[in-house]
Amino acid sequence: MTWASIDLNADLGEGFGRWRLTDDEQLLSVVTSANVACGFHAGDAVTMRRVCELAAGRGVRIGAQVSYRDLAGFGRRSMDVPYDELAAEVAYQIGALEVFARAAGARVSYVKPHGALYNRVVHDEGQAQAVVDGVLLTGERLPLLGLPGSRLHEVAEKAGLPVVTEAFADRAYTAGGTLVPRGEEGAVITDQAAVVERSVSMARFGVVTSRCGRSVPVRARSLCLHGDTPGAVGMARRVRTQLEASGVRVEAFV
Amino acid sequence: MTWASIDLNADLGEGFGRWRLTDDEQLLSVVTSANVACGFHAGDAVTMRRVCELAAGRGVRIGAQVSYRDLAGFGRRSMDVPYDELAAEVAYQIGALEVFARAAGARVSYVKPHGALYNRVVHDEGQAQAVVDGVLLTGERLPLLGLPGSRLHEVAEKAGLPVVTEAFADRAYTAGGTLVPRGEEGAVITDQAAVVERSVSMARFGVVTSRCGRSVPVRARSLCLHGDTPGAVGMARRVRTQLEASGVRVEAFV
Amino acid sequence: MTWASIDLNADLGEGFGRWRLTDDEQLLSVVTSANVACGFHAGDAVTMRRVCELAAGRGVRIGAQVSYRDLAGFGRRSMDVPYDELAAEVAYQIGALEVFARAAGARVSYVKPHGALYNRVVHDEGQAQAVVDGVLLTGERLPLLGLPGSRLHEVAEKAGLPVVTEAFADRAYTAGGTLVPRGEEGAVITDQAAVVERSVSMARFGVVTSRCGRSVPVRARSLCLHGDTPGAVGMARRVRTQLEASGVRVEAFV
Amino acid sequence: MTWASIDLNADLGEGFGRWRLTDDEQLLSVVTSANVACGFHAGDAVTMRRVCELAAGRGVRIGAQVSYRDLAGFGRRSMDVPYDELAAEVAYQIGALEVFARAAGARVSYVKPHGALYNRVVHDEGQAQAVVDGVLLTGERLPLLGLPGSRLHEVAEKAGLPVVTEAFADRAYTAGGTLVPRGEEGAVITDQAAVVERSVSMARFGVVTSRCGRSVPVRARSLCLHGDTPGAVGMARRVRTQLEASGVRVEAFV
Repeated sequence: MTWASIDLNADLGEGFGRWRLTDDEQLLSVVTSANVACGFHAGDAVTMRRVCELAAGRGVRIGAQVSYRDLAGFGRRSMDVPYDELAAEVAYQIGALEVFARAAGARVSYVKPHGALYNRVVHDEGQAQAVVDGVLLTGERLPLLGLPGSRLHEVAEKAGLPVVTEAFADRAYTAGGTLVPRGEEGAVITDQAAVVERSVSMARFGVVTSRCGRSVPVRARSLCLHGDTPGAVGMARRVRTQLEASGVRVEAFV
Repeated sequence: MTWASIDLNADLGEGFGRWRLTDDEQLLSVVTSANVACGFHAGDAVTMRRVCELAAGRGVRIGAQVSYRDLAGFGRRSMDVPYDELAAEVAYQIGALEVFARAAGARVSYVKPHGALYNRVVHDEGQAQAVVDGVLLTGERLPLLGLPGSRLHEVAEKAGLPVVTEAFADRAYTAGGTLVPRGEEGAVITDQAAVVERSVSMARFGVVTSRCGRSVPVRARSLCLHGDTPGAVGMARRVRTQLEASGVRVEAFV
Repeated sequence: MTWASIDLNADLGEGFGRWRLTDDEQLLSVVTSANVACGFHAGDAVTMRRVCELAAGRGVRIGAQVSYRDLAGFGRRSMDVPYDELAAEVAYQIGALEVFARAAGARVSYVKPHGALYNRVVHDEGQAQAVVDGVLLTGERLPLLGLPGSRLHEVAEKAGLPVVTEAFADRAYTAGGTLVPRGEEGAVITDQAAVVERSVSMARFGVVTSRCGRSVPVRARSLCLHGDTPGAVGMARRVRTQLEASGVRVEAFV
Repeated sequence: MTWASIDLNADLGEGFGRWRLTDDEQLLSVVTSANVACGFHAGDAVTMRRVCELAAGRGVRIGAQVSYRDLAGFGRRSMDVPYDELAAEVAYQIGALEVFARAAGARVSYVKPHGALYNRVVHDEGQAQAVVDGVLLTGERLPLLGLPGSRLHEVAEKAGLPVVTEAFADRAYTAGGTLVPRGEEGAVITDQAAVVERSVSMARFGVVTSRCGRSVPVRARSLCLHGDTPGAVGMARRVRTQLEASGVRVEAFV
């Protein structure tokens, strides 16, 4: 399947207090959707407010990047959070971000789980349900950005929430169309030209070359760009420029 | 000045995770306004959700009890939080609570600073302005519950926010009508009959007997009841019963 | 196997800031080993200091109750903490407690993992190794208190650390001598007389009646008493009194 | 007064989890004393362990950089922490660091308060006493690194603890020999040549040129270098090189 247009999303506002991680201002000139950290793995209130203002000023969509409560582990440690806690904490985070989105004249437009929670809800139905129910608590039918085929998306669709699929331009795929797990050799692609070429291929033709050299279909309405690596901004710019040069419309999914 | 009616407010939801402090369920059968902890000095998401559901089910108003970020100190340690941090953190807390209020079919109806922040904004104009600006960020003209004559109320009124005055039935007052500071002898009144009598006097006639025996005027649209002391629920019930027996209408201020 | 003597241990100091959970003072008059919370799931510095002073004054042994960093979840949520983080965090907690033990004229005498970490190291070799290596970092050969047959004990023994087995007087056992999982019916025994009887049986004869009525051997140098339930102190006193009346010497294992 | 030798100290290990701030490895090749963050304003256990290993390997002294409990504010917000809490928290932090210092074959050699606590104990006798009593709890007579003439040093000396004075090469001084407060114009000196020249002047002759052009005496056994500014490592190297070229021995004070 090919798309006439593609969304570019990145994690933003992932500092905390004195610490910074992402070049929010530069990345906001490239992406169309900003996954804003909401204070549980990163993201203080001042940063959330500033990122919302910058995003709204540039027409970038604001998404709630919800996470386990784990500043020390940056939300990257899988946690057995009971259903009712996780649901309530998801709602809490979205509500906190909504204040700053509204103050900037925008709204929280979607939700994307972060880190270990993102990986967990690919297969853990209980936690997927908690995330979905947390979103439902807000009373808004917010789309859930995530991996195609994930439990999160199954549960969300059953609950009547929109789902938006994403792919990763800098990650290797298996012949089955799933991500090569981090930690395996070649899982992350660092060659900039290759990342750019794959982005265009996924956006225009909905295919990517798998680790073993075959073209595999990758359904994705959005491409995730990493913002916390050295050279992240340059890479993001190059991807966007080449997408547009290839006739792909870069635009938010909502 | 006398009031045809009085509001009764108490701090609720002041547990965190495994810990509990207040008998939320019982207190919600007595008070008309619930100051709900929002996660910064106390109050996890599950508790916030539950208290909002209970409050909404009983027609009790939900207020955001905003605080310094200080779980270890329960928000009781004065902190030099810069203006922009404090304003954003106040907005963050109100936004988080609003999700649960709405999910319960209600709204956050007012804001009351907690602990050291409550005491600080009586005289600190900078922090008072930050609290008011945090409220304004939400886009709602939420009333600020606090001490009459406080800087918080001055700043709020300048900003066009409603203010609601409160008094303390179990605290001694000076001849000037201000609270006897905690730590001074006799600052806290523990005799139940005296507390009940003072409550009625303040609600019906707007006066209270000062430490030195004089009647002094106390403007208060709301009486604050303490929920975290032994016997708190019994005391609260007695105050409410006697108020109603004296012809005072006990009702929320909004 | 029977023991001439038995140790009684309980979790203590499990408050945080304004919150209290355990009646430390009363329990310290009953137990011989105090598992002191070190700040990661509970336990602030003031409480740690006070519990160490009380324990040392009564000759009660001080153990470090190490946990995942999880105040919000009280350390009860299993977490995929990487090896190096967990090892360092275990050492950090022991070091912090050691200050207060020494200030009270005592020493940290043993280590017991808390909550989800306790359950995890029964079977997770990687986390068990991290706990053991964290203990080794301290340079002290501290015994590890835990379940007989656990991975934690296997790994500890390989590393040359002493291990101490414990049993639970108020938990049901399977015919295989393992704990009936919480959540299954009858997992927790609430009848005081039964708990007391089982304590004596385990301490004197090393056996307990399983869920299905058979006597099964339970190796235990220590009995764990729960301190955070209503009536905990009374139950603990009754257990100790009956043990002593049955000729069992109640004494610390170190 | 002049010194035959000078110590160079810097704040290290000021990351937390995913976040980094200081180039610990490079700075440890320049300084002689490392003020290691202990987890309250920054500093996770993994980082503390690594910095201690690097420092011990290079003969750099390890100091406990104790702070208010304030990750969100990086310890830069003055807090009214009660005496007993502050004393216990200081001891807790030193104890936690001591584990890693010992594991690396070294010891915690001194204590330096961080940020807002550093500034507060210049004049606040109660908090100064709490810091000193926290150090005494450890049972070690650890020197306190701080400003000459501070309350902290007065209280420490009364308690029999050694004190070590420090000066700031990149800060302007008044004619009275005190620091020009941050926020005033010219408070921070950014010209590298000037900073180097002032370092040599303070180390060799114990004098510095004040803001108004007069030579004022500055007693300092140690110079504090800032590690968290761009170019910090280069600046630190230049200072050390020029000190040594000027015949000053750069060595730790303990």
